[in-house]
Amino acid sequence: MAENAGKAGTAWAETDTGPNESHQASFDFVIVGATGDLTMRKLLPAFFERFRMGQIADDTKIIGVARSDLSVEVYRERARSALSEFSASFASDNKDAEKFLELVHYVSLDASDTSAEWRPLETLLSVNPQRVRVFYVATAPKLYVATADAIADHGLITATTRIVLEKPIGTDFVSARAINDGVGRHFAEEQIFRIDHYIGKQTVQNILALRFANPILERVWNADSIAHVQITATETVGVGKRGPYYDTAGALRDMVQNHLLQVLSLVAMEPPTALSAMDLRDEKLKILRALKPMDKVSIASDTVRAQYVAGMVDGKRVDGYLEDLGSDASNTETFLAIRAEIRTTRWAGVPFYLRTGKRMAHKESEVVIEFRPQPWAIFKDTPEPNRLVLRIQPDEGVSLSLSSKDPLAEGFRLRDVNLDVSYIKTFGTRYPDSYEDLLMAVVRGDQVLFIRRDEVQASWRWIEPVLDGWAENVRPMETYPAGSRGPASADELLRDDGFVWKEKT
Amino acid sequence: MAENAGKAGTAWAETDTGPNESHQASFDFVIVGATGDLTMRKLLPAFFERFRMGQIADDTKIIGVARSDLSVEVYRERARSALSEFSASFASDNKDAEKFLELVHYVSLDASDTSAEWRPLETLLSVNPQRVRVFYVATAPKLYVATADAIADHGLITATTRIVLEKPIGTDFVSARAINDGVGRHFAEEQIFRIDHYIGKQTVQNILALRFANPILERVWNADSIAHVQITATETVGVGKRGPYYDTAGALRDMVQNHLLQVLSLVAMEPPTALSAMDLRDEKLKILRALKPMDKVSIASDTVRAQYVAGMVDGKRVDGYLEDLGSDASNTETFLAIRAEIRTTRWAGVPFYLRTGKRMAHKESEVVIEFRPQPWAIFKDTPEPNRLVLRIQPDEGVSLSLSSKDPLAEGFRLRDVNLDVSYIKTFGTRYPDSYEDLLMAVVRGDQVLFIRRDEVQASWRWIEPVLDGWAENVRPMETYPAGSRGPASADELLRDDGFVWKEKT
Repeated sequence: MAENAGKAGTAWAETDTGPNESHQASFDFVIVGATGDLTMRKLLPAFFERFRMGQIADDTKIIGVARSDLSVEVYRERARSALSEFSASFASDNKDAEKFLELVHYVSLDASDTSAEWRPLETLLSVNPQRVRVFYVATAPKLYVATADAIADHGLITATTRIVLEKPIGTDFVSARAINDGVGRHFAEEQIFRIDHYIGKQTVQNILALRFANPILERVWNADSIAHVQITATETVGVGKRGPYYDTAGALRDMVQNHLLQVLSLVAMEPPTALSAMDLRDEKLKILRALKPMDKVSIASDTVRAQYVAGMVDGKRVDGYLEDLGSDASNTETFLAIRAEIRTTRWAGVPFYLRTGKRMAHKESEVVIEFRPQPWAIFKDTPEPNRLVLRIQPDEGVSLSLSSKDPLAEGFRLRDVNLDVSYIKTFGTRYPDSYEDLLMAVVRGDQVLFIRRDEVQASWRWIEPVLDGWAENVRPMETYPAGSRGPASADELLRDDGFVWKEKT
Repeated sequence: MAENAGKAGTAWAETDTGPNESHQASFDFVIVGATGDLTMRKLLPAFFERFRMGQIADDTKIIGVARSDLSVEVYRERARSALSEFSASFASDNKDAEKFLELVHYVSLDASDTSAEWRPLETLLSVNPQRVRVFYVATAPKLYVATADAIADHGLITATTRIVLEKPIGTDFVSARAINDGVGRHFAEEQIFRIDHYIGKQTVQNILALRFANPILERVWNADSIAHVQITATETVGVGKRGPYYDTAGALRDMVQNHLLQVLSLVAMEPPTALSAMDLRDEKLKILRALKPMDKVSIASDTVRAQYVAGMVDGKRVDGYLEDLGSDASNTETFLAIRAEIRTTRWAGVPFYLRTGKRMAHKESEVVIEFRPQPWAIFKDTPEPNRLVLRIQPDEGVSLSLSSKDPLAEGFRLRDVNLDVSYIKTFGTRYPDSYEDLLMAVVRGDQVLFIRRDEVQASWRWIEPVLDGWAENVRPMETYPAGSRGPASADELLRDDGFVWKEKT
């Protein structure tokens, strides 16, 4: 599989410029699905920030493509109003704002239809074969292959052309492979950028820095010192308007197959020889393949699935999933917890607990590394285990809990203290959105933050038996009230091993 | 040596009460030298705080003893004014203040003179043999033995009587042993409490909690992971009025023999089997004995001594040491740096650098544990080594430096972040003075925070060759300007090993 990555194996170290060097990229960036939410809320604001930082040259073109029949002026007005709403810097930086909008173009085109009128788009694209050209496909995954076919039909794939695919890649192993094969007929693997925006998050990328630039952590990063790992991503929102889509997916496909397994693989991987796309993804893949396959026995004992029913969120009564969906019945999980196991020398015997849910008590994404207790405690108080918490959202940061002497108690008593760093507080006012790093990495041609086809397929290989087992009701569906911590069985999953979920305090 | 500690080996675990339990002690506490600065600035305020916290019973007597002919009323007025000045709580807590002053008594007596009039003191002391009785000798060390003799002569040593000796114990090995022998003729070792107020500091005590209640730290606490250790205690003040005394002592006797070697032994000791006075002091003693003895070669290469000359402190011109002393010449060091080595399996090859000085650029006491670098760095930036800093003063706390991803740089760049906890910020408004824990430990009879005679003597054994070598000019005296970081040779001491002193940022 590593050979797929071949040419893509350029290390960050080779492609990076220093933080003070000017590295102005010139490129044509085609966004397919340019009238959608993602473009307006994330992509345009991300480009604008990097434009302001001097990372994007003035002759760059950001070309919106969608079926709507809009003039470029109307599209720029939509872009302006989206930027006003979603970019804090936009309103305050009028000069850059106007200059940036001049980079924005629009073409009305159904890009999945090769027989449509492609000439306006072709005219906008530079004929310089050195110039980076990106097709960012932000449409439904079922259109990915047809779009790639049409781009190829029109001869638009140069040596420096890249295609970006928004998650999810397929709904199971077979459909994922079909997308990979279909797009792969026209694009080499090193031209394909599969986005998982979780990987763009600073805390997630920071797992690499923390693990591999800090010997004090790397030395205890193994089964000798770590008791278990929790990876949690909970939301307070319900499915909202996404009900019809969500009901065909569920939490396992929506969150675990991509985000949580990616986070798990970064936490668990062996140190790569270099920070290159090839080396890094080879190591992540090894972890995805080392996950102990789930069978009917482990699906029954090591998974929990549940659906929210009506409850209270932030003091307000909210509907259950079925009411949100407008349906009488559904077999789709909105919550799950899984005990996973990694069969490597480093991790054997260390449970990795995954948990995600909608309509939970808190919005919180974090990784909790709990260390083994002191084998012989010489204090009257039993020390709490050390915990390293990587907060992915909402307040990105790192904290390490340590036992400390309580200064006011009589005699020697222990008390937990948290050594903490909040990235927002540390790094100042503005904190970059995950798409900023991802978009600029596409432009640089750096695949290290993107998912390789073998990773996607290995994730589905592990997920699919659980999907099947649940379809056969090997583990029955439970319910939990909206605004709660999920079903009690999720707590029992850890309690059986002597652990508890770390809850927001 | 451990047998000396015999009965004193009561664990904290056995003698402690919980933080919410009432543990009201009743005792007679005689302070010899009760008109001095220490009593007024430290001892009375410390007792007052613990009285307010409910740890001292109303029938307790705090009996000031000194030669001055004062009535109890006048002494209480002095106590009242000292408390107003040195206790932030005193002014705001009128009710407790008045009740507390009723516990304070005074006897005019030269306690080093057995033929003086002891009856007033005897009358004040309880005849109950169970009641804890403490003689806190806050006079010149040369009076320790005579005072112990006189107390014994008057039959005042009950089974629950303790004697507290303020540092320093002697000026060399022979004089220290003479004091220990002299006081030891009347008091058993478990009745003798040798104070080192550094040990009362929360951060210093916290070394025990950090090391032995936090497996994540204990696992890297050895030569495999630690590159070197720095123990620094610098002041901005000069010798002031203490010149004539200081000139007979110098930095080595004044700071290293007691404070810095105690800190070193806590940082380096093996885990004790229990947190008892016997176990803890046995382990500290092992370290003091494992210090590689200094000889002429190592005194020349591994020590630096210097005296301050006129310079600038906080923007003001200040005199040099000789002007402060009012003398033409002196061979006394006001600054020193030493590279020490501990010959144990855990520490062989890890330099322990000690540094202390007056009239330095900053007031700062801290322990810096610098970890070894990552053997193979996969990042473009070379990560800074991880450092754990234990801040003893002025802002007690702990910080751990970690390399982290810089969120705003283009590509993957490293940046140092500090995970930090300030005890004052964490534990709220009032932070206890080191004497509070120490005085209450004397009352409880808990020797774990006090120095055993064999520790004192082992320290002198290691220090004395350096004193002798310096007297023979094996390492010449240097100078440094007041307000500076000390002489350049102190930097060279570390540079030879590839390290640098961590400076206040």
